[in-house]
Amino acid sequence: MLRWLTAGESHGPELVAIVEGMPAGIEITTSDVQDALARRRLGYGRGARMKFEQDEVQLSGGVRHGLSQGGPIAITIQNTEWPKWEQVMSADPVSPEELSGARSEPLTRPRPGHADFTGMQKYGFLDSRPVLERASARETAARVALGEVASRFLSQLGINLVTHTVAIGSVKSDSDSLPTPEDVSLLDENPVRCFSSKDSEAMVSEIEDCQKSGDTLGGVVETLVYGLPPGLGSYVHWDRKLDSQLAGALMGIQAIKGVEIGDGFATATRRGSAAHDEIFRDDEGVVKRATGRAGGIEGGMSTGEVLRVRAAMKPISTVPKALATIDVKTGEATKAHHQRSDVCAVPAAGIVAEAMVALVVANAVLEKFGGDSVAETKRNLVSYLESIPDVLKSSGS
Amino acid sequence: MLRWLTAGESHGPELVAIVEGMPAGIEITTSDVQDALARRRLGYGRGARMKFEQDEVQLSGGVRHGLSQGGPIAITIQNTEWPKWEQVMSADPVSPEELSGARSEPLTRPRPGHADFTGMQKYGFLDSRPVLERASARETAARVALGEVASRFLSQLGINLVTHTVAIGSVKSDSDSLPTPEDVSLLDENPVRCFSSKDSEAMVSEIEDCQKSGDTLGGVVETLVYGLPPGLGSYVHWDRKLDSQLAGALMGIQAIKGVEIGDGFATATRRGSAAHDEIFRDDEGVVKRATGRAGGIEGGMSTGEVLRVRAAMKPISTVPKALATIDVKTGEATKAHHQRSDVCAVPAAGIVAEAMVALVVANAVLEKFGGDSVAETKRNLVSYLESIPDVLKSSGS
Amino acid sequence: MLRWLTAGESHGPELVAIVEGMPAGIEITTSDVQDALARRRLGYGRGARMKFEQDEVQLSGGVRHGLSQGGPIAITIQNTEWPKWEQVMSADPVSPEELSGARSEPLTRPRPGHADFTGMQKYGFLDSRPVLERASARETAARVALGEVASRFLSQLGINLVTHTVAIGSVKSDSDSLPTPEDVSLLDENPVRCFSSKDSEAMVSEIEDCQKSGDTLGGVVETLVYGLPPGLGSYVHWDRKLDSQLAGALMGIQAIKGVEIGDGFATATRRGSAAHDEIFRDDEGVVKRATGRAGGIEGGMSTGEVLRVRAAMKPISTVPKALATIDVKTGEATKAHHQRSDVCAVPAAGIVAEAMVALVVANAVLEKFGGDSVAETKRNLVSYLESIPDVLKSSGS
Amino acid sequence: MLRWLTAGESHGPELVAIVEGMPAGIEITTSDVQDALARRRLGYGRGARMKFEQDEVQLSGGVRHGLSQGGPIAITIQNTEWPKWEQVMSADPVSPEELSGARSEPLTRPRPGHADFTGMQKYGFLDSRPVLERASARETAARVALGEVASRFLSQLGINLVTHTVAIGSVKSDSDSLPTPEDVSLLDENPVRCFSSKDSEAMVSEIEDCQKSGDTLGGVVETLVYGLPPGLGSYVHWDRKLDSQLAGALMGIQAIKGVEIGDGFATATRRGSAAHDEIFRDDEGVVKRATGRAGGIEGGMSTGEVLRVRAAMKPISTVPKALATIDVKTGEATKAHHQRSDVCAVPAAGIVAEAMVALVVANAVLEKFGGDSVAETKRNLVSYLESIPDVLKSSGS
Repeated sequence: MLRWLTAGESHGPELVAIVEGMPAGIEITTSDVQDALARRRLGYGRGARMKFEQDEVQLSGGVRHGLSQGGPIAITIQNTEWPKWEQVMSADPVSPEELSGARSEPLTRPRPGHADFTGMQKYGFLDSRPVLERASARETAARVALGEVASRFLSQLGINLVTHTVAIGSVKSDSDSLPTPEDVSLLDENPVRCFSSKDSEAMVSEIEDCQKSGDTLGGVVETLVYGLPPGLGSYVHWDRKLDSQLAGALMGIQAIKGVEIGDGFATATRRGSAAHDEIFRDDEGVVKRATGRAGGIEGGMSTGEVLRVRAAMKPISTVPKALATIDVKTGEATKAHHQRSDVCAVPAAGIVAEAMVALVVANAVLEKFGGDSVAETKRNLVSYLESIPDVLKSSGS
Repeated sequence: MLRWLTAGESHGPELVAIVEGMPAGIEITTSDVQDALARRRLGYGRGARMKFEQDEVQLSGGVRHGLSQGGPIAITIQNTEWPKWEQVMSADPVSPEELSGARSEPLTRPRPGHADFTGMQKYGFLDSRPVLERASARETAARVALGEVASRFLSQLGINLVTHTVAIGSVKSDSDSLPTPEDVSLLDENPVRCFSSKDSEAMVSEIEDCQKSGDTLGGVVETLVYGLPPGLGSYVHWDRKLDSQLAGALMGIQAIKGVEIGDGFATATRRGSAAHDEIFRDDEGVVKRATGRAGGIEGGMSTGEVLRVRAAMKPISTVPKALATIDVKTGEATKAHHQRSDVCAVPAAGIVAEAMVALVVANAVLEKFGGDSVAETKRNLVSYLESIPDVLKSSGS
Repeated sequence: MLRWLTAGESHGPELVAIVEGMPAGIEITTSDVQDALARRRLGYGRGARMKFEQDEVQLSGGVRHGLSQGGPIAITIQNTEWPKWEQVMSADPVSPEELSGARSEPLTRPRPGHADFTGMQKYGFLDSRPVLERASARETAARVALGEVASRFLSQLGINLVTHTVAIGSVKSDSDSLPTPEDVSLLDENPVRCFSSKDSEAMVSEIEDCQKSGDTLGGVVETLVYGLPPGLGSYVHWDRKLDSQLAGALMGIQAIKGVEIGDGFATATRRGSAAHDEIFRDDEGVVKRATGRAGGIEGGMSTGEVLRVRAAMKPISTVPKALATIDVKTGEATKAHHQRSDVCAVPAAGIVAEAMVALVVANAVLEKFGGDSVAETKRNLVSYLESIPDVLKSSGS
Repeated sequence: MLRWLTAGESHGPELVAIVEGMPAGIEITTSDVQDALARRRLGYGRGARMKFEQDEVQLSGGVRHGLSQGGPIAITIQNTEWPKWEQVMSADPVSPEELSGARSEPLTRPRPGHADFTGMQKYGFLDSRPVLERASARETAARVALGEVASRFLSQLGINLVTHTVAIGSVKSDSDSLPTPEDVSLLDENPVRCFSSKDSEAMVSEIEDCQKSGDTLGGVVETLVYGLPPGLGSYVHWDRKLDSQLAGALMGIQAIKGVEIGDGFATATRRGSAAHDEIFRDDEGVVKRATGRAGGIEGGMSTGEVLRVRAAMKPISTVPKALATIDVKTGEATKAHHQRSDVCAVPAAGIVAEAMVALVVANAVLEKFGGDSVAETKRNLVSYLESIPDVLKSSGS
């Protein structure tokens, strides 16, 4: 069973992440993690900060000479702007004189759509600084780092993930063909990580238009998993279901308001005869599904077909044409704080979604196959597939 | 922290459920649980079996003289048809002679959309009987029983749940007004648990039409929670987020393929200036949100506004006009088993969704307020609300 | 990962237990569980009730035709005296008239050594009935039932448990030879489950003597596990350590006040040169430990040598010559309630300890080897042992 | 619920620790953690390294201006000798040329008593370096850092911990009086952290004698907790029991082989009439226990009396007069590696034990009282104590 925690504030000295339960023998280096983090910063519509920032990463524990060692893996991601924040975000007490300047002022105009207002109620603050520092999407960098470990592990087992943007604002991309692992570099080069170049252009226009009007955009991302064996997750208890775990993981990302597996909400509008994936045996005797409506999950288990899951992101809550709120210092109506922000972070959210899916799938693999080393997990996976009788051989097995 | 497990097969002697972590002092009786189970059996489009079956319930542990005692609460739900299944589903070995009759035959034509095929691969069966017995939606009765305990607990704290059907097949009900706890008996009497009588009629027609064509239907249900304090769940870690927990719980229900919080996928199509809930102070000095788009959750926390979450159910997978599959005995193409089934189970799914939401919310309440008795939890809840400074007083606080 | 819960009160209608996470294919029947429960009732020094009571057991879920099915396994154990307690322990409210008789009186003289007094403070009771009903050692019957499932699973993997009494009161049995799985029936027939017949006689005398003086006895039990592979548990995180898990499980048994692994506290008095188990290669090239001081666990992992763990039980707290307490009705000094009780329950505690060890070890096996069926777990276990290079082959591998 | 993970290797760049679930408002600074770590390095019998090493600590997340913020708290502890180990322990691959020198040689002579041999079997290594790097007691520094956060939290609630050495090797200190929080600085100044100066001298002599003979020593430490309210933990389920949690936590410390609550194993030798703590009401009407044999825990709950728990440490396994083992490169008999080590680490183990107890108790406090800020937890704790009826008022309430 994997356990993982992230810590750190948006403007603190560093983000810290630990994942416990990974087997020994995962091939992972500092630059792998840096590359993953760089992918998270891409995407049309991000602020200038994103493009030039380079993450300083350290694998602080659990990895030696490019291989995981079986113990907890710790990754730290430095805040390159820490000197600017050293007093404001100091762990230790600082004198009032040190706390001058705009950054030190209490934030008293909570932003709608953010954790600000309720966070103050919950933890007893009169300043939303402590809330937004932790609630910020900056934290997802730590997840991407851990997700990279999971992805590398899965990749050694022949399981690969692909994520693309399927909607930005009102522009949807409902292509019939799905990107495959071979298409990942193409997606990374696309300004919005969309698989259709035509739709990609429309999305970029949408972002430009939105930026002009001082507004923000959300959208929908889709993660695909290729190479899964059948039987990850289980129907035997609700929280063993792979779709339950995926939904929890994706909805746990900042700004995500909806999750669907396969055709999801569209499936609910169809009749049963047109909603499921019929089963047939192909010419080589392999059992397959005629369609992919279920998104590769039946009964809470991976079927061995391509797994497909979507997450809907709301528009960025820090809106340039600021939203109405109150000032909690005075109780008066005002406009919300407007921290420097982006127009659209959907492509980045896709990278975070992929990381979360990778962590969930890696956990499901370890749950079914155990293993203290990649070699052991792989051996158990292969022998499981070999043990499936010919008549039950299917995609992925 | 609540922990709960369910056990039992669809045609086994009984379903068994235990929830651990509930405080002492919850008012709950056998008939409360029976009533909850009766609500799950309602709804236009269910088979005859549903309407007449009466669940025999026993509170086997944790409750005395109508009050929970602080220890684990166990509930058993008898299978009234057990005598018919005693040999087929016997826990102990039975002789081959005892195993005659249709019910004893191995099920070798796995049904698309069900756990049947992958379940056989995963657990090494050549018969889908063991799979469908546990994967069956019959298991959700156990969750409804436990959910009733959670609901009764929440009700004593002034927190009440309402669930209604917002779509069946292609018929959607997008009313502006939401049902309140006062409307529950009205919803229970409605054949599809829809709050709009006009839409309800269209839904019934849809079901009738579908039944004639030998097909099945899915839909969408929405659960509302009234009376929540602000600050349940948290932004500090992904799996502390209330929306993450709700998504996992709802997607863990049989046949659910999508979950959204508040306006969910629709929010992803909007621009930021029209996607969030602006904050204002009303005439009595109470902070409120101008709209309910976020579904009462910001930053992974309840805001104190009405919580609103939706789940999309796929059409019942056992389709009368049977789907294509293979016979795993021969490997030949065939039609899937057609177990007796219903046309539409969306109203029932709503009751299950409500149970899952109740369990998640009860857990979040205990996480924040602790308490070994309802009196203690309530005292802590009230003193929290009182501790919120006037300038931060809002809906629910 | 195994999860398990027990529920039910000492005089309630039934005990209920569920274990989730067991693989399919475990050979288990109702009579296996009954036999395990019968072993728990044995032992010199138990009250008359114990000897004649026969537990009515039902495998309510998860087992079919003598084999586990992969889903949660539920076991209920009826209270044969339920008719006597039906009103007093009724889940539903009863009228005052129905509640006459001694059994209905509030228990207001909390017994030292029991949960009575603190339980009332914690949960807000003025009657210790609700406390003692759940805190009672009767609950351990549910654990023994679940432990039997774990033991049967382990046995199919070649892992077997033996438990014996090593001390009762001041009588210690420090034999040099340890009982093996072949000795279990011998132990079961011994009145105190002691492996030395000489020491056994002394223990029986001790119990008789104690009974005459109206007093009670505790003692020490030791559980041995044979056939373990090396490498269960891990040093990588404290709560992955097998000894940590065993200690938590054993200290979680009613009346247990001490736990030691191998030579435990005695090891702390030795010098390093005489405290550890030197490593050598025997004539057949198998690596072995020269001694068994560590109890088969190094670095939180099973070494493949015999695992050995001890638990110290305090004397039964319900002492016939009753202890001083107060009456919480009046606040006056008085003598504690004296519920009918036993002189010595150490042999029974050994059966409970064995059940807890079986559950911990089964969990560790599943953690390392995964597997949805016994066949799969076994295949993974065997291939792990085969993968160990010759130079590292040791006991158990 | 608290969750916490540690990561990092003995000679890696840093140890990393995260604890999630702590409330906001805990007063904690970098120097608090440094002081706690300094206490862990004290004690007669440690190597020279210990005395001069200064830990470089960073509170990387969760703390601002001396107060916890409600989010995960991350602490890193730098390895001051990292430059010497940079190649050997590099996370990224290094060229063979960089890996020259004694530190780079594979360790092939596994040390009895350590995780070395089994660790290689489990994870598939032919070098025990990766095993000992993580299994090393260096990791406990991370626990002490997290334990300090817990201790500071508890201290704000009036709960304080004291730990002293009660045995080193064959020298026992069975004083009648227990040290109190006022005695902590005295204990810190004592060379073996023993409360009796006479026994302390004997312990120092024992260590000196042992050192001359090239041997090592273990011992027993005792942690006391003052100021606990009654009712932490619970009897309702085995793993809710505070003693179960304490036993798991203490046995999860490197080199601990035994745990006892209160009089522990000694209690098992007594008769019931002399084994429990009788209950009486003192002159001021406060209910008290006449003795402290149970160690302040009955029925798995804190009684409000002083909590007392002991842990037995085996002698350090790296024995100067090296133990017999095999060389796994050749399979030949040899002597174990002798890494530079200490004679006796019992005083340090006491500091680690105290940290683990603090984490367990803090978790139990949050379980019962909830709270997102120290103020909220405290308010709930106080109102619980006030709610206890006069007739049930006792020590701690």
